[in-house]
Amino acid sequence: MAGDLDTAAADQVRADDRAHVFHSWSAQAHVDAIPIAGGSGSYFWDYEGKRYLDFSSQLVNLNIGHGHPKVVQAIQEQAARLATIAPALGSDVRGEAARMIAERAPGDLDRVFFTNGGADANEHAIRMARLQTGRPTVLSAYRSYHGATGGAIALTGDPRRWANESTGQSVAHFFGPYAYRSAFHSDSEEQESERALQHLRDVVQLQGPDTIAAIIQESVVGTNGILVPPPGYLQGVRELCDEYGILLIADEVMAGFGRCGEWFAIQHWDVVPDLITFAKGVNSGYVPLGGVILGPRTYERFADRPYPGGLTYSGHPLGCAAAVASMKAFEDEGILDNVRKLGETVVEPRLQQLKDKHASVGEVRGLGMFWAIELVKDRQTREPLVPFNASGEAAAPMGAFAAACKKEGLWPFTHMNRTHVVPPCTISEDELTAGLDIIDAALDVADQHTAG
Amino acid sequence: MAGDLDTAAADQVRADDRAHVFHSWSAQAHVDAIPIAGGSGSYFWDYEGKRYLDFSSQLVNLNIGHGHPKVVQAIQEQAARLATIAPALGSDVRGEAARMIAERAPGDLDRVFFTNGGADANEHAIRMARLQTGRPTVLSAYRSYHGATGGAIALTGDPRRWANESTGQSVAHFFGPYAYRSAFHSDSEEQESERALQHLRDVVQLQGPDTIAAIIQESVVGTNGILVPPPGYLQGVRELCDEYGILLIADEVMAGFGRCGEWFAIQHWDVVPDLITFAKGVNSGYVPLGGVILGPRTYERFADRPYPGGLTYSGHPLGCAAAVASMKAFEDEGILDNVRKLGETVVEPRLQQLKDKHASVGEVRGLGMFWAIELVKDRQTREPLVPFNASGEAAAPMGAFAAACKKEGLWPFTHMNRTHVVPPCTISEDELTAGLDIIDAALDVADQHTAG
Ligand SMILES: Cc1ncc(COP(=O)(O)O)c(C=O)c1O
Ligand SMILES: Cc1ncc(COP(=O)(O)O)c(C=O)c1O
Repeated sequence: MAGDLDTAAADQVRADDRAHVFHSWSAQAHVDAIPIAGGSGSYFWDYEGKRYLDFSSQLVNLNIGHGHPKVVQAIQEQAARLATIAPALGSDVRGEAARMIAERAPGDLDRVFFTNGGADANEHAIRMARLQTGRPTVLSAYRSYHGATGGAIALTGDPRRWANESTGQSVAHFFGPYAYRSAFHSDSEEQESERALQHLRDVVQLQGPDTIAAIIQESVVGTNGILVPPPGYLQGVRELCDEYGILLIADEVMAGFGRCGEWFAIQHWDVVPDLITFAKGVNSGYVPLGGVILGPRTYERFADRPYPGGLTYSGHPLGCAAAVASMKAFEDEGILDNVRKLGETVVEPRLQQLKDKHASVGEVRGLGMFWAIELVKDRQTREPLVPFNASGEAAAPMGAFAAACKKEGLWPFTHMNRTHVVPPCTISEDELTAGLDIIDAALDVADQHTAG
Repeated sequence: MAGDLDTAAADQVRADDRAHVFHSWSAQAHVDAIPIAGGSGSYFWDYEGKRYLDFSSQLVNLNIGHGHPKVVQAIQEQAARLATIAPALGSDVRGEAARMIAERAPGDLDRVFFTNGGADANEHAIRMARLQTGRPTVLSAYRSYHGATGGAIALTGDPRRWANESTGQSVAHFFGPYAYRSAFHSDSEEQESERALQHLRDVVQLQGPDTIAAIIQESVVGTNGILVPPPGYLQGVRELCDEYGILLIADEVMAGFGRCGEWFAIQHWDVVPDLITFAKGVNSGYVPLGGVILGPRTYERFADRPYPGGLTYSGHPLGCAAAVASMKAFEDEGILDNVRKLGETVVEPRLQQLKDKHASVGEVRGLGMFWAIELVKDRQTREPLVPFNASGEAAAPMGAFAAACKKEGLWPFTHMNRTHVVPPCTISEDELTAGLDIIDAALDVADQHTAG
């Protein structure tokens, strides 16, 4: 695969990228994007033939892996048949995708409003909630990411919100449960759950329950730490919502569609939200697609009065065809089982071992194919390996860890002082073990930055 | 094509749609989406084999027509090769699409930030403008549509903004030029241009020039009336912006990529904006894609400081591959020439005839493949055929007009008291003439609702 031609091709990709592509979340002059030539299953490769095991599933969207033949075929066939059609005209694949999603969704959630991605899914969910309740405010967690458009960035709790504060949305942020770094000084998961609920109740009281349209909550917090809700927490949020007529929006953009071993992560806790937002795993991002799942009460609000929202590509046939094919492949190939089995039998025990072995590992946590390794300078004080929201020199230890992974052919997901283990849901046991071996070795690099 | 099987298929599409699809901008219980089986060129058809000549280009996005073989092939090949890759990794088709767009863009605009559609393109453009200038406010026209996410809906001037006012963005709306219904009591195009510029200058003065980050302007206002800027207007806006250090954002989501016979509509007036937003025609919506084109000054602001915005599918390979193929096909097939030629030699003279013939036609206007027929009750008073933002019974005359078109196999674009002539840019002269014949006949229906 190597050779002069490939080098020339890679050079062209680099040159075009430097000269003409503006990159997200980046200082543009410092971007150096590795040209990627192809991908298959859990791997992708560059033009020199170097292969990477994809432990990030790109941006945790590639649940079915690269180049799944069934999904590729569905896209090819739909492109030939009818690539696009306006939202107001009927489309077979759009209806089929909506039906299949509704069948898999919890409770009475039975209708889908399709969007292009996760941010606009959340935009429309909060619009529905505000109009359904007639209330202005939405509560969301500080440790959250809900997207980067005007409404979604206001919901987002993490530092990506800061440069965009002027959006002036009526949003208030609360602290969710995070036992390892408890905002409530708890010393058990149970206590964390109880105290986090008390805090949320206090916020609701002081914001004014009658002003609150919705609480939006990642069912399992993703980018901000793979924070699995402790026992009773989501049930408690549901009850609080019911008490005050507040809608519960579950953001399943990252946690949904198999990532946690269920169609929807919230199904682990038997809680039925009022609205679910999704994107990413619904079709693994082969075609941009997202959406909101809603039930009869939301539908009723807009049965005779128009819903005031839309977008040109709502229910795009190419995206929906990919979603249909992906959901079928998940079932035909037992992918949810694969996630549950490998999560429990391979990832969890191995991460526990890594914790015992490496001084830099403060905590490991997760479920399914959705795990975090939280790195610390000092296990006693739990001081993060790099400061909150660090960049440049301050973030160097994480950069060194990531570089060690890449050198050995693993593409890691890192965020602040964590690395997440989030490979495709289709990964094999051998690939998973090979990847965890590389992480194990790279943690030696992180260990050098610990106090001990 | 007809038969039991097709009826069953259509019934299934209808049933799925009614039970599971939530529709944009609609009262859900009243949606009756016609199931569409396929499309080719300027036509699409339902399951009973009824064909429609697409005079709406879906949502004015299908510039290259349905099922263009080159674009379909590019999607099929890219899907097999690498459907998706994260924005931080390099992609050949992304770089190529960015380069081709930059080459076609006016002035020194040379970089592209890709999004999924038009709304998020505008979201990012106003974020860039606010950060580049350090100022909060954006001015936009009342007669405008800029999308439906939190930031974009605040920019939007048309009634779709009303239910979403609480977004609280710092946006102020002004009146643009619209000689037929002048907000400035002008009686010529020249006077309209002059007075609209004076009004805009007044708004800038009274809002406070130092608070204004950008003026966003559809180069040719689309959904809100195909309002072609009068001579000198866009130049005047550019000068006003330069005078006060305000950025000019040209929203070319609908007007760009061939619709007006140029790559970018603003090229008609030799004006170089600071930012251009695009979507729709860039790849005809075969795959969701949009973006912002920016120049060195915007780049500089984010060269060493991170740009605080992004989305999972920025620079999606499938969308970019379709864009590359579409731009090439436009050139190989002389599509821009087709638009210019048929616009001048077929559409314009025929619409002038329709105006002479039909009492309901108040004005016709446009350029390229972007035309409006404005319908009135009374040519003297210019009272619109249906009231501003009418729905239900009040909008019935427009409904009757549209129904007459559909009956004869033409899919019209109607908005308020207008029908727009916006077929694919690839339409043939015969198709165009056949479509205009149908419009001609349907205008008899509109004539019945006039005063005369
Ligand atoms: C939980 C969650 N919500 C929303 C989003 C935004 O999705 P998108 O990038 O498609 O706008 C993300 C993206 O990472 C996410 O993780
Ligand atoms: C001028 C203009 N800007 C922005 C948009 C929004 O684009 P999208 O529907 O892809 O969000 C549209 C859609 O019609 C438009 O016409």
